[in-house]
Amino acid sequence: MSVLAARPLTAEAFAPFGEVIETGGAFVTINEGFCRRFTDLATLDIVDGRPGLSLFQAEIRALPYDCTLLERHPLGSQCFIPMQGSRFLVIVAADAGGAPGTPLAFVAGDHQCVNIARNTWHGVLCPIAGSGLFAVLDRIGAGGNLEEHRLSRPIRVTA
Amino acid sequence: MSVLAARPLTAEAFAPFGEVIETGGAFVTINEGFCRRFTDLATLDIVDGRPGLSLFQAEIRALPYDCTLLERHPLGSQCFIPMQGSRFLVIVAADAGGAPGTPLAFVAGDHQCVNIARNTWHGVLCPIAGSGLFAVLDRIGAGGNLEEHRLSRPIRVTA
Repeated sequence: MSVLAARPLTAEAFAPFGEVIETGGAFVTINEGFCRRFTDLATLDIVDGRPGLSLFQAEIRALPYDCTLLERHPLGSQCFIPMQGSRFLVIVAADAGGAPGTPLAFVAGDHQCVNIARNTWHGVLCPIAGSGLFAVLDRIGAGGNLEEHRLSRPIRVTA
Repeated sequence: MSVLAARPLTAEAFAPFGEVIETGGAFVTINEGFCRRFTDLATLDIVDGRPGLSLFQAEIRALPYDCTLLERHPLGSQCFIPMQGSRFLVIVAADAGGAPGTPLAFVAGDHQCVNIARNTWHGVLCPIAGSGLFAVLDRIGAGGNLEEHRLSRPIRVTA
């Protein structure tokens, strides 16, 4: 089994796979000075459907975590918004001829949302701290939007 | 000054003003049994624009809270998703001839998102616990989408 050390999530490192939604860039001040608004941070890339908001309640997983499955969604991006202090692993891979190439692993903080680009290989939602509750913004529509790839060799993700 | 006691947020009580997004209803089990998905819980009612994801970083406010301003958005619903354990006041009012009628106040838990219906009078984002960081799903588009109404008599919201 190959071993992969997860590293802290940054927008730069994650750019080939999607977007990290976090404060730090340009903002406008609203609500009489009491609030900063960082506007329109995610590319909602939805084909043949519409974006919708769902909740995911996922079990907290322990590290090291053995990843055995990657998936991708050909018809839409998928944005994960952590609630209640949830921190989570984000495992992604570039495509290599219709199958995932070598994966990378990141740890997202509870202040970061992650928008996985349409058709990008990724592991399933994997919270490692917090309650495991997430709001998820992804495609609502008919038709298949899930491609799965079971790894011939699991990947052990460590802290 | 009139005094208003905030009560816990429930979907039933909030129904005239929008939606409470929380687990508890129908779900499907995904990710090999490790995750429950509660699908498509918010009505994204956007006119002449598109939904987009933003972050709001709001200051934590103390109770009692004196509400002096209500606003509404004629062109779109606005959904607040609390991150990092943020609990928040939700102050809403029915319309009464182009101005807000008698307000109601709720306290939303950090497990609840609130989708305020298009053109519904509401107070500004008002976290009372947590970090004050929210993901917000609302209208991205040109043109004015804000109507404000300053209250002639502030409303004091208590716990």
